[in-house]
Amino acid sequence: MKPPISRFPVPALDSLPDDVRRKMLEVQEKAGFIPNVFLTLAHRPDEFRAFVAYHDALLLRESGLSKGEKEMIIVATSGANRCLYCVVAHGAILRVYEKQPLLADQIAVNYLKADITPRQKAMLAFAMKVCTDSAAVGEADFAALREHGFSEEDAWDIAAITALFGLSNRMANVTSMRPNDEFYLMGRVPKAKT
Amino acid sequence: MKPPISRFPVPALDSLPDDVRRKMLEVQEKAGFIPNVFLTLAHRPDEFRAFVAYHDALLLRESGLSKGEKEMIIVATSGANRCLYCVVAHGAILRVYEKQPLLADQIAVNYLKADITPRQKAMLAFAMKVCTDSAAVGEADFAALREHGFSEEDAWDIAAITALFGLSNRMANVTSMRPNDEFYLMGRVPKAKT
Amino acid sequence: MKPPISRFPVPALDSLPDDVRRKMLEVQEKAGFIPNVFLTLAHRPDEFRAFVAYHDALLLRESGLSKGEKEMIIVATSGANRCLYCVVAHGAILRVYEKQPLLADQIAVNYLKADITPRQKAMLAFAMKVCTDSAAVGEADFAALREHGFSEEDAWDIAAITALFGLSNRMANVTSMRPNDEFYLMGRVPKAKT
Amino acid sequence: MKPPISRFPVPALDSLPDDVRRKMLEVQEKAGFIPNVFLTLAHRPDEFRAFVAYHDALLLRESGLSKGEKEMIIVATSGANRCLYCVVAHGAILRVYEKQPLLADQIAVNYLKADITPRQKAMLAFAMKVCTDSAAVGEADFAALREHGFSEEDAWDIAAITALFGLSNRMANVTSMRPNDEFYLMGRVPKAKT
Amino acid sequence: MKPPISRFPVPALDSLPDDVRRKMLEVQEKAGFIPNVFLTLAHRPDEFRAFVAYHDALLLRESGLSKGEKEMIIVATSGANRCLYCVVAHGAILRVYEKQPLLADQIAVNYLKADITPRQKAMLAFAMKVCTDSAAVGEADFAALREHGFSEEDAWDIAAITALFGLSNRMANVTSMRPNDEFYLMGRVPKAKT
Amino acid sequence: MKPPISRFPVPALDSLPDDVRRKMLEVQEKAGFIPNVFLTLAHRPDEFRAFVAYHDALLLRESGLSKGEKEMIIVATSGANRCLYCVVAHGAILRVYEKQPLLADQIAVNYLKADITPRQKAMLAFAMKVCTDSAAVGEADFAALREHGFSEEDAWDIAAITALFGLSNRMANVTSMRPNDEFYLMGRVPKAKT
Repeated sequence: MKPPISRFPVPALDSLPDDVRRKMLEVQEKAGFIPNVFLTLAHRPDEFRAFVAYHDALLLRESGLSKGEKEMIIVATSGANRCLYCVVAHGAILRVYEKQPLLADQIAVNYLKADITPRQKAMLAFAMKVCTDSAAVGEADFAALREHGFSEEDAWDIAAITALFGLSNRMANVTSMRPNDEFYLMGRVPKAKT
Repeated sequence: MKPPISRFPVPALDSLPDDVRRKMLEVQEKAGFIPNVFLTLAHRPDEFRAFVAYHDALLLRESGLSKGEKEMIIVATSGANRCLYCVVAHGAILRVYEKQPLLADQIAVNYLKADITPRQKAMLAFAMKVCTDSAAVGEADFAALREHGFSEEDAWDIAAITALFGLSNRMANVTSMRPNDEFYLMGRVPKAKT
Repeated sequence: MKPPISRFPVPALDSLPDDVRRKMLEVQEKAGFIPNVFLTLAHRPDEFRAFVAYHDALLLRESGLSKGEKEMIIVATSGANRCLYCVVAHGAILRVYEKQPLLADQIAVNYLKADITPRQKAMLAFAMKVCTDSAAVGEADFAALREHGFSEEDAWDIAAITALFGLSNRMANVTSMRPNDEFYLMGRVPKAKT
Repeated sequence: MKPPISRFPVPALDSLPDDVRRKMLEVQEKAGFIPNVFLTLAHRPDEFRAFVAYHDALLLRESGLSKGEKEMIIVATSGANRCLYCVVAHGAILRVYEKQPLLADQIAVNYLKADITPRQKAMLAFAMKVCTDSAAVGEADFAALREHGFSEEDAWDIAAITALFGLSNRMANVTSMRPNDEFYLMGRVPKAKT
Repeated sequence: MKPPISRFPVPALDSLPDDVRRKMLEVQEKAGFIPNVFLTLAHRPDEFRAFVAYHDALLLRESGLSKGEKEMIIVATSGANRCLYCVVAHGAILRVYEKQPLLADQIAVNYLKADITPRQKAMLAFAMKVCTDSAAVGEADFAALREHGFSEEDAWDIAAITALFGLSNRMANVTSMRPNDEFYLMGRVPKAKT
Repeated sequence: MKPPISRFPVPALDSLPDDVRRKMLEVQEKAGFIPNVFLTLAHRPDEFRAFVAYHDALLLRESGLSKGEKEMIIVATSGANRCLYCVVAHGAILRVYEKQPLLADQIAVNYLKADITPRQKAMLAFAMKVCTDSAAVGEADFAALREHGFSEEDAWDIAAITALFGLSNRMANVTSMRPNDEFYLMGRVPKAKT
């Protein structure tokens, strides 16, 4: 028997408010399945809506960071927070975006050993400091980003993505949110139609 | 000269989308001033809306926790994250709600020495673990809450408030968000009409 | 009912040796009340005398540090040691000396965000390293002080004040020493005659 | 261009002493490729031989731990030491032994959320303490193992495997040892002939 | 050439105030040499007097702790603070008091492996918590002491000795105070007349 | 009664395989006694052989590090891992090799205060980083070694010795391996014929 998706009740799709259910079906159509984070957070529709709005505001936004780079931030900081759900689910998305099957595992364990550019390492160094010691972030950290061509708005993006997924990591850890099995293999096999 | 509210640009009220400006004016009417967190986050209206929605979903929600208890969680965990803005602003709100002028300073420094109930200490112990080591939260932590009469939904509230203000703490630290001067004294003087 | 001042017995004034009682009455005359640290430590008159002597040797001494700067050191390191008594009591004294009602709360939470000079931040960086990792203090730390014009004697002052209040923080934490209510408001209201 | 296997020189197979080369060819025959740990450590044949001898003494030994359980220990503690090589290579071996494609990722991130038995969680709790704070290991830790049926010899096995791979993690981190690409996918796809 | 005793000026004996010099000569008569802590701290006679007064108040006091047990506390906590002077000097005194040449090295490295009683281990557990995390000391820690027959006054002694030598450790680390060569061998050789 | 050498069974010499026993007698002839690490690890002859082979490969090897410098690495990192056996036993060997009776105690507590060269401090800084945070070791750490004339092979030596004794520290801590009494005094008294 499969372990539960969440230690909290998981709502049946047809018990959900229309907008929440619609969002789920949209994602399902695109991904082929409903990621468990949607099912877990939908236990509280208002919080669900706020989370999705925050998520979209940051991840769909035009930015100096590529979509793949945003996922790198999520994977690296979720590794630091030891959040199984986000490492596995966003690791999958990172592989798909970057078309590099090895990248997510590298970044989740130690981004310093990953096949990424020095600029991306600087981005992740900033993200990791925001994640683990934000009170010490200061002018020198912004200067290090600037040396690699990041703007102030990019710094905001890095910080805000780290902060939002810090929230998500804590909720996933507390709810024992379970990654969908599908994520583990996504983007690993060249011809997989994920 | 006063230091800036944020290291990022702070939008003029009349440059803001209507709904964002309206929210600000509402708060201003109620509090007598616009808390700088609104001005700082409004630099990005979509993220502003998501933050406010998340905030209201958690803090205005009926719950097994009182409004004052929710603020205790924010003050204790913001102390752990060394976030000046949230310690000062939510410390003020906590004093006002609880009508106890000493409480916020006690909880910000060390909740174990605060004038609160054993039940409230258990609540803050759970919050602090979610804040600093969420990956280790487990059955024993939920059991400790239950012994003090907290439900599973209360546990979600404690975790989610901690997680949301962990996000807020990181943004405030990275932006060097400055607490409004008004907060420092609010709720400290018995007859103050704050 | 008010919680006790200390978990240990608190001596009645008239049971104390003359010199100890005299010291108390002196402070009471000046401050309007007897700070609880005096009442708590007087449980052991010999240790009381040594503590007061050490305190006076460092705090009344002519120095390259102003009286307000010495209190900044106490507030910042007591924050790091999470000592409620010293954050509240010396926070009050700091406000009174510097006539800046916001300063103590800023420094207690995160001195990097406080309204102080770069020289004062260098002073507090040295103090925090002595407080949390003194074994690693070395030539580079003294050099950083010198760049801001601090002498070797000033470095001794910073270290010794940090060290003495590290002692005091530990005794206050172990005895659950309670700050007098009066301290919380001292120096916050412009016209208060504190 | 592929990044190098190691920051140190990697010997050509035919430059190696006979016994070392033979060992490599043996492994290659079995696995289909030579794991980079062999090539990296063979830079120093004497250390190579000692490492292989230690490895075989612990991993080929009859024990109260299954072969899969031994790999769980390696994956969990290598995650704690943030060793990319061992997480990826032993994660692969764990998947193959246990025929559970999800297990290695779960254990590398947070064994508390993995699909393993309470007995296996107790085993990993002991391993993690040996890994991160061995000086504090004491009678209570052995007692916790005994409650799950582990013998003293099993405790030695858990400790020694943790200790040996702590050595291996440090060498892999210092040499920037690169996992073979083959490991990332091994044991993930049901029909894969790994 | 011998490295200096202290990075700060060391006063000549005949330049010192009478009472300070007398104290030094007294110790010299008893120990055969002047411990460098006296020479280092005498750079500031008022602080010297306060330190000696505090030291004597705690170490010469009748107590539920033996003289050897007080030294155990100093050695264990000075090890945690990585203070070379206090580990070496008080290690010597501990060997002399307890007539156990192995004890000091054991306690400095890991008191859990030392040849001491369970009661002494409980005493050192309390001291180590006061040393490294005094803000978390609470009722359960006092209860653990009581189980081994320690009174509240004994708890004060343990805490105060830990706190005073925490001060001393920080001053020794910052001044690079050098232990006298004599201490290293004292109490190690059965018939040595140290 | 003496405490046991190990919490695991210690084999009688004549129950051991010939090669293992021979190794013991060899060491006994040279040192005058059998170090307890041999007796403890011989509980598992195969692991014993591998450990001795690894040890000899690293410590008997020609290297840019002197024999005394290799022992400095062992003593410093064993201090960080709080391993009583290795601090005491290798402290003894270090004293003998370097003919400096004070050195081992200095390095075990805080190598920054030891009577060693800047080059040796750089060597120990690298070793300590490998010991406590190997995942963060990078180009800058190798560059710091090069500035002091260390080659890449020397860096391997430092890392490998640190890694091997990290293994040894963990086994000694878990087995409560007891240092032979003889070690404590070795090399301390000028004329001792150790």
